[in-house]
Formats: sequence, C-alpha cells, structure tokens
Amino acid sequence: MNMHAQADSLLASLRPEARNAPESGIVEVMNHGRLKQGLIPLWVGEGDLPTPCFIVEAAKRSLDAGETFYTWQRGIPELREALARYHAALYGRPFSSERFFVTGSGMQSVQIAVRMIAGAGDEVVVPSPAWPNVPAAVGVAGAVPVSVPLEFRDGRFVLDMGRLEAAITPRTRALMINSPANPTGWTARREELAEILALARRHGLWIVADEIYARFVYDGSARAPSFHDVMEDEDRIVFVQTFSKNWAMTGWRLGWIEAPPALGQVIENLVQYSTSGSPVFVQRAGIAALDEGEPFIAEQIARAAEGRRIVSEGLKATNRVSLHAPDGAFYQFFAVDGRTDSRALALELVETANVGLAPGAAFGAGGEQGLRLCFARNSSDLVEAVARLQRALSA
Amino acid sequence: MNMHAQADSLLASLRPEARNAPESGIVEVMNHGRLKQGLIPLWVGEGDLPTPCFIVEAAKRSLDAGETFYTWQRGIPELREALARYHAALYGRPFSSERFFVTGSGMQSVQIAVRMIAGAGDEVVVPSPAWPNVPAAVGVAGAVPVSVPLEFRDGRFVLDMGRLEAAITPRTRALMINSPANPTGWTARREELAEILALARRHGLWIVADEIYARFVYDGSARAPSFHDVMEDEDRIVFVQTFSKNWAMTGWRLGWIEAPPALGQVIENLVQYSTSGSPVFVQRAGIAALDEGEPFIAEQIARAAEGRRIVSEGLKATNRVSLHAPDGAFYQFFAVDGRTDSRALALELVETANVGLAPGAAFGAGGEQGLRLCFARNSSDLVEAVARLQRALSA
Repeated sequence: MNMHAQADSLLASLRPEARNAPESGIVEVMNHGRLKQGLIPLWVGEGDLPTPCFIVEAAKRSLDAGETFYTWQRGIPELREALARYHAALYGRPFSSERFFVTGSGMQSVQIAVRMIAGAGDEVVVPSPAWPNVPAAVGVAGAVPVSVPLEFRDGRFVLDMGRLEAAITPRTRALMINSPANPTGWTARREELAEILALARRHGLWIVADEIYARFVYDGSARAPSFHDVMEDEDRIVFVQTFSKNWAMTGWRLGWIEAPPALGQVIENLVQYSTSGSPVFVQRAGIAALDEGEPFIAEQIARAAEGRRIVSEGLKATNRVSLHAPDGAFYQFFAVDGRTDSRALALELVETANVGLAPGAAFGAGGEQGLRLCFARNSSDLVEAVARLQRALSA
Repeated sequence: MNMHAQADSLLASLRPEARNAPESGIVEVMNHGRLKQGLIPLWVGEGDLPTPCFIVEAAKRSLDAGETFYTWQRGIPELREALARYHAALYGRPFSSERFFVTGSGMQSVQIAVRMIAGAGDEVVVPSPAWPNVPAAVGVAGAVPVSVPLEFRDGRFVLDMGRLEAAITPRTRALMINSPANPTGWTARREELAEILALARRHGLWIVADEIYARFVYDGSARAPSFHDVMEDEDRIVFVQTFSKNWAMTGWRLGWIEAPPALGQVIENLVQYSTSGSPVFVQRAGIAALDEGEPFIAEQIARAAEGRRIVSEGLKATNRVSLHAPDGAFYQFFAVDGRTDSRALALELVETANVGLAPGAAFGAGGEQGLRLCFARNSSDLVEAVARLQRALSA
C-alpha cells in the first residue's frame, strides 16, 4: 500500500462519530494567518490580558507546597465552597456546595453534560449560530444537533419560541441555551428564560445552560438574566461554566458544572473516566479568582464596554456592514454588505487588513454571512484593527 | 414528589451508559478509610514523592512569563519534539514528533483512543484483572468490554493466546494491552507482543497499548519489552501514556497519545471537543521532565525495587498469602489464603491493620480474591505497613 492508501485505511477503520467530527472552522482561518507579521488576532474567544498575578501566585504557592498528587474527582472541597459563595453573591440567595463539580474546562463541562443526557438516537436542540464546539460535542456523543436559527428583528437577535418548540421531536433530549450568546451577543430576557424553562418542563427535556458570559453585559446591570432567576433547584438544568473568560484563565483549562446534587455520583464517575480530576494547584488558582477577582472582573467589563464602542461605531462608519452592538458577551457579529461567503471573506481579510476574524460559517445555520470579532482587547489594537478593516472594506 | 423520588426521576432521565458507569471500587474503600489517623495509604497508583523541583520550576517560569492563553490542540511543538527525543532514546531509533499528541492525562488518552475505535455495538477485549477505568471508559463510550482473565502458571501470570483469540468476535474492534500490567505486574515478553500483534493484524483489530509502567522492571533491563520492538509505524496501534508515574506528576493531569500521524486531525478534533488542550505551563513542566528527568526516574525505580523486596518478602513470611513478586509496574498483587472476598478484606484491613489496600474485585474478572498494594513509597512506611499486615493476618 502507498502512504495515502495506508492513511485512508487507518481512517476508515475508525468510528464514524470520531472520524466525522468537524475540524474547527475558526482554527482553519487561524492556521492560514498564524505566522503573519503584525496581524491583530480577534478570532479567538479570549482577551489579551494574561492571568492576573494574585491568581498565578495562588497556583505557585500550591506547587511549592507539594500539592502535586491525585485529588477529589468532584473538585477540592474548598473550591466547591468558593463556588457556592460566588453564586450566592451573584444571584442573591444561598447555594449548596454539593451542586458544584469541578471540570477540566468549560468544554469538558459541555462534554460531560452531553454524555449524561444524549447519545445514539437522540437529538439536542441548539439555537444558532452557536459556538461550534457544542454541536460538535453532541455529534461525537453519537447524537444529532438540531439547529434553530436566531432571527434578527427590530435591530435585535430573537429566539422565536414557536420555532424552538417546532424543533422538538420525540427524540429530543435537551435544549442547549447559551445566553449571553457566542457569537451573536443574544441575551435572553428573564421572561424568555421562563418561557424556555416552561417549554422544557412541558416536554420533559434537560436544559444545558451556558451562561459563561453572564458578567459581560452593557446595560449597566451586574449580570445577565439567568435560569437561576426562574428555576427550582431540582429542575433538569445543567450549567456548564468556565474560569476562562471572567478571570482571563483561558489557558488553565478549569471549569465547573452546576447540577442537582442527585447527579453527583454520575458526574464524579464521568470525570473519573475522562480526565480523573483537575490539578489541585489549578484549583487553588480558581479559589483565588472567585474570592478576590471582583476588581479584575470590573476592569475586564469596562475594557470590553470600551472595545464594544470602538468596534461597533467604527464598523458602522464604513457604511458597508450590518450590525447590532451586542447586548452581552464580548463579540461583535456583523455582516458585510454584498458578501455572503464568510469563510472566503475571513481568509481575505487576513491578507488585506491583517486582522484575524472568525468566519460566521463556522458557527452554523444563520451565521453563514457573518464575521465574529472579539473585542476583549486593549483600545489601541482595536482602533488600529477597525481602521484597517475600514480601509480594506472600502477598497 | 419527595426528595428521593425527585432524585430517582432525575437519574432515570439520564443516558444508561452514563448512569451505569460504575463507581470506582478503589475509591469506595478509600472513602471508608480516608480520615483514619495514621493509616498507611497503599491503595492508589501513586508514590509518596511530590513532583521534583526542576519540573515545578519549569511550570512556575512559564506562569511568570504569562503563558496563560489558549494553545495548540495537539500540544505545543516543543513538547511534541521532546516526546520524540525521549522515545528515540528509549527505543533506540528515530521518532517523528508528528506521532505525538498531548492530552490532559493518561485517562484522557484512553478515552480518546476508545472514542476513535469503539462505540455502540462494538466489543473491546481487555485482559484482566485490569485497571478499572479502562473497561469503564469502554462502557461509557457505549461499547462492551470483554474480559480475558490472565492465568497464574508456574509462578507467573500468563496471557493465554488461545483464550485471547477465542474472545474475538465479529464485533471486536480492539485489544487493550497493558504491559507491565496494573494490578498484576504481568509483563509481556517480546515474543508474546509479536504474537498479539500478529493476532490483531490477522483480525483487523486495533491495539490500545498501555505501557505506562515500561520503566518499572526489576530484571536489570532499562525497560520492558514494547510493541515498539515488533511493530511497523503504520500498524493499528495507539499508545496511551501519562507523565504521572515516571515523574511523580499524578496531580498534573498530563499525558500523551502516540499514533500514526494519519490520525492527527481526528485526535486534534477529539481533544478540541473534550478539553480543548492542556495548559502551556503544564506542558513546559512536561518538557523539563522528559529532558532532565532520567536521574529522578532512576531514583524512583531503585526505590520501587527496594519496596518490592520489602513487601514481597514480608508478605511471604506470613505464610498466609500467595504471591509472585511482580516482573513490572509497582504493585504487589496477592491473595490471602482462605479469603475470597477482597472487598470485605480490604475494608477489614483498614480497621485491623490501618493499611489501605485496593480490593482486587475492583479490577474485574480474575482479580476477585486479590489485594493490590502500591510499593512506590519510602521504605520505612512499607516496613511498618508489612509489619501491621503480618500482625493482622496472623490474628
């Protein structure tokens, strides 16, 4: 056999769920531009600030203390307590630490949530455009992700409840609800969350709630509306969470799941049989973040608000784009008039503007014509990026 | 609904593969004894040494340098190069860095290997007794683990090739081969590995090779026989590996997969959709371990050899146990005469000896009557543990 035939034969012998997992459409554009001098990278969902010192120092102290052994699969008790405190402060009511389970990233939280709820023969409804890793994780688990495209009405994204309900079939097991949403910034109102919950209850469905951008809202409130505002503790809701965004910890791979404590042993087992827990020294960093991180979060939100202003005003000034400054999260999602192939456009803008954007096509149905720009970055980079985009789009 | 009915209803709404994932039988005994004063814990597969300073310092330098951002899904290129160098030195021939993929633990390597190869309707053959996380991971993926018990012949564990082949059905997709083996210490000879490979080739099966204890052998050789000694690069073999044992890094959650490069994009995607990569600062620690770790490994092996001697001689002296000092790994697996329920015995020895052992029953077929003792520990603890076990077993 020649090399290509050998490779084909190896691939053919793999499970289709694995073989067919899609390559990230964001990474594809990144690989195209990774080595370009002076490129301003706004394609990934992370800011430009390294993790703050007080968090790093907590990890280093733990390492120096020799905390390098196996630990609790559910997370160290001190971190679970810190999560309960953080939630109590944010949502204004007490939380039991038994509801919290430490994971090796928000992504792993999604993987475990999906694994608990959906598999071969099941469907999971995903409003779209959506973070591509969510439908991909559903597919890897052997289930089918079903898109419900958001609509753009009266200058705002809207999730049509009739379309959401129409997507539910006897095979549906869960709704994945991401609010504030990546990439659109769609932020559900409290009454919309109540409607979604009522729908899930009526159909006996789980909700996988991704509220990781809850702190990044721009109407002056402390946080976005949450399922926490409308739910009972024993509702079938699994929250998937991460330390990545609030505390500039994308590279740490630390997240958590919040779920009814009755699921505790199942979640522990699924952690055991996937990564067998998170490093204690990383968890110590998480405690520092939760307990001492509010000033840093305030700084991050202020920066994002300024970034949002620079980007939305600057792009509007081109008169070449359609956009709505997002209600939440830290992405500007926008379409360029007359351009419908976002993959080609993102690749082109790497060359013509030396700015890295994520193609909306990577985010599935409803995203095809859009571009996603992450504005969690210093103002001067954003001003320069917008100027470059203005020139490239007017050319 | 009352609370129990609510909990039952929540659990009933989960996928059976998740709900039925077994609780670790090792953890059950640990939870029984975790808080006992003065207990000598020999139940887990880790030593008593914290990670050496030169490894910790590499991580701290990386943290101080602000390496706290997202990174390559396959691992940073420098670590993949270091893995290639390490393998070249150990196996005496060149390796391409394209064969190596960084994971968030040996466990995650197993999870990804299983996910690539087996799912609903498939069978995976697992010689047993085996590390329980392997058959559990097969089950979580929706496939069925099929045990082939090792036999104890002429003072040595043996994998009967006839029994191995007899376990293969049209549904079989892979053989999980762990040598040196946890918990038995079974160490395949080179010609046995060649036979297993020939069998896999004949039946078109994958081999998932767990050689994580390869350095821990007690016949004076530098390493155990390996599939590397008998394979071609394009054979259907996936090696699942970890930094945990050689470099006392159990708490770091860092491992790797070695596989044909043709699988690269699939492995990258499965990392992307499970944990989305490993922290750069943890990977820097891995590089230090690989490049500067040989003196530490030599010290670890010498300690384990001494531990093996203390434990095997001490237990033999009771005249109450059947055992074979293991050829590899760092566990003494032994049976106590007249005692067939290892779970009850392990729980009892927590009370009567204040020593923590893992019950063989947790390791599946063929392990029911055994106990696993980890001897990767300082001599004085082991001498004391053996004395306590001698007293308890003679009582």
